[in-house]
Amino acid sequence: MPDIYFEDLAAGQEYDLGSRTLDRAAIVDFATEFDPQPFHVDEEAAEQSIYGGLIASGWQTCGVYMRLLCDSFLLQVHSMGSPGVDELRWLGPVRPGDTLSAKLRIDEVRVSKSKPDRGIIMTAGEVRNQEGDLVLTLKSPLMVRRRQ
Amino acid sequence: MPDIYFEDLAAGQEYDLGSRTLDRAAIVDFATEFDPQPFHVDEEAAEQSIYGGLIASGWQTCGVYMRLLCDSFLLQVHSMGSPGVDELRWLGPVRPGDTLSAKLRIDEVRVSKSKPDRGIIMTAGEVRNQEGDLVLTLKSPLMVRRRQ
Repeated sequence: MPDIYFEDLAAGQEYDLGSRTLDRAAIVDFATEFDPQPFHVDEEAAEQSIYGGLIASGWQTCGVYMRLLCDSFLLQVHSMGSPGVDELRWLGPVRPGDTLSAKLRIDEVRVSKSKPDRGIIMTAGEVRNQEGDLVLTLKSPLMVRRRQ
Repeated sequence: MPDIYFEDLAAGQEYDLGSRTLDRAAIVDFATEFDPQPFHVDEEAAEQSIYGGLIASGWQTCGVYMRLLCDSFLLQVHSMGSPGVDELRWLGPVRPGDTLSAKLRIDEVRVSKSKPDRGIIMTAGEVRNQEGDLVLTLKSPLMVRRRQ
């Protein structure tokens, strides 16, 4: 059960969100459903592409980030969802066998002016591969319930 | 096979990307893997939440948009991928049984300065439910191969 309220969160807090390895089947399965561009689903076409081999859909990298965020942070928080994402950047390819590690930093916290039951935390997330290369960054506001 | 190059694309072009209906199982399955917040996976918890019932993960709405974009536009284009997304907005809840319809507009086209084999098209995407309510908007650059 969640036990973290808006008041428990502060700018500067950082969270290690753990890691997950993506194998070839997971990459092809996701892309077949959501993003069947040749360099995500077809090994031969991917080799001929500018990527030189199969790469994961950037949306899958977002999904991996979201799951790690849930497991290591958000499911403990009285989360009320998010209105969107700013500055989502796919900075490098994710390839079969890559192990993705995620981090979260809170950049700003403020009480909602229009809805006094909640606050907004501005988060900065990042995902790196096993070489330490950034593959995803994103900035996103999250709505969090205030203590009564 | 793709037959649309950068030179074939121009600011102001609009594409109807078709639609897809999301049932309850698809919503829960996606969220169970990528975004297991209570209001995405647990009917009872969702009813107690600010959403008043089960809603789809915003990342699934992005996935549906991406798939519609592929099927109705991008797989005909010599796409070279995308560096990211700006101003992704989840504007309203997506509920079981909702039919999502997507559109794409090209806002700007320009040749890459650093990589002469490609151009950048700035796209604005939107997804509406069967009531016509906007549920997702996003702005994203796409890299497209130039004709030799």
